Amino acid sequence: FRLALIQLHVSAVKSDNLQRTCGLVREASAKGAKLVALPECFNSPYGTQYFKEYAEKIPGESTQKLSEVAKECSIYLIGGRSIPEEDGGKLYNTCAVFGPDGALLAKHRKVHLFDINVPGKIQFKESETLSPGNSFSMFDTPYCKVGLGICYDMRFAEMAQIYGQKGCQLLVYPGAFNMTTGPAHWELLQRGRAVDNQLYVAAVSPARDEKASYVAWGHSTVVNPW
Amino acid sequence: FRLALIQLHVSAVKSDNLQRTCGLVREASAKGAKLVALPECFNSPYGTQYFKEYAEKIPGESTQKLSEVAKECSIYLIGGRSIPEEDGGKLYNTCAVFGPDGALLAKHRKVHLFDINVPGKIQFKESETLSPGNSFSMFDTPYCKVGLGICYDMRFAEMAQIYGQKGCQLLVYPGAFNMTTGPAHWELLQRGRAVDNQLYVAAVSPARDEKASYVAWGHSTVVNPW
Repeated sequence: FRLALIQLHVSAVKSDNLQRTCGLVREASAKGAKLVALPECFNSPYGTQYFKEYAEKIPGESTQKLSEVAKECSIYLIGGRSIPEEDGGKLYNTCAVFGPDGALLAKHRKVHLFDINVPGKIQFKESETLSPGNSFSMFDTPYCKVGLGICYDMRFAEMAQIYGQKGCQLLVYPGAFNMTTGPAHWELLQRGRAVDNQLYVAAVSPARDEKASYVAWGHSTVVNPW
Repeated sequence: FRLALIQLHVSAVKSDNLQRTCGLVREASAKGAKLVALPECFNSPYGTQYFKEYAEKIPGESTQKLSEVAKECSIYLIGGRSIPEEDGGKLYNTCAVFGPDGALLAKHRKVHLFDINVPGKIQFKESETLSPGNSFSMFDTPYCKVGLGICYDMRFAEMAQIYGQKGCQLLVYPGAFNMTTGPAHWELLQRGRAVDNQLYVAAVSPARDEKASYVAWGHSTVVNPW
């Protein structure tokens, strides 16, 4: 089957991002993709200062749009970090998945929040504003079983091992590595997870935008088990 | 502390290999190495057809020499796959470690035997002639705790995870990857183990010899946790 990873440019205007995303999903579907994945933060800039402003409940505006376009195209749609999710006064970094009938199939809340401090290079703490998820997220498709992680979740080998043991043949990580961790770890981690667990790994990043406050590494990738 | 990996040329003449090895260990020690590691098969050609002919008991001729040179140089010496070890009628792929006083500190028998069949490229089965080890092998030094694996053991993430959980800060893998698996996995696996478990990883290979029946990949490497 055909898998599409959408590495799109993300601006500060949510409605523009949503519109651009839906257009690209339709394009991927028209080219034969049956499973389409969006990057982390496809509808908002990345940064702890933005999470609250862009947060939505699920269902909400953004996930409603994703559900509609999944149904329209009759595809499986992995909604990246569709939104900073607001629930019970807490914010989560959440990825929602929709099936070809538009139904919500899975909702993954990023388990491993990313606090980084490389002096002189990059420093921030997701845990200042976000709460961690506490569960694994898998869904079935006619093609294979898929396991979900978000970005820094990729660093944790045990998570991928458990997905493998539970029968996942594909892991998808919407992510937004940066210019420090990107060159060091982005490809390494995907290849490591794929070879160690003998499954396919896909990671989807926003496009690199040198003018953004957070510059994403890009390099969306699919890796096979060899 | 200084770690030396000896990537030596291995011939079919065991006594030559032993003599060359001891000379190189002395040279490494003279340059300040406190821990010296030899490659898999440092004293015999690699290949299932050679294991029986070159097999020794432990202690035996080869390990006696290693013990003596470790004591002479007052170093820790990781004896690669010092020998195909013969014990109770079975053969093992075994790595012996000696301390600065010449005492045997650890003996690792390769756990994961390597059976490969890549059509048109390479095919053999270690399990036809060797028996697997069934234990983990660690030893303490004044510098850090060290975990041992041999070659294909590197492919198994869980082994490195357990060594890390038990406090090892350095993993050493004497290995002899080939021209098929070498470019695909040698560096990837070491970097993966190091980043996943936040420890140092060293892998020691025999030198590449295009004329040998089994051509080793070479590329002895040390990897840091970042």
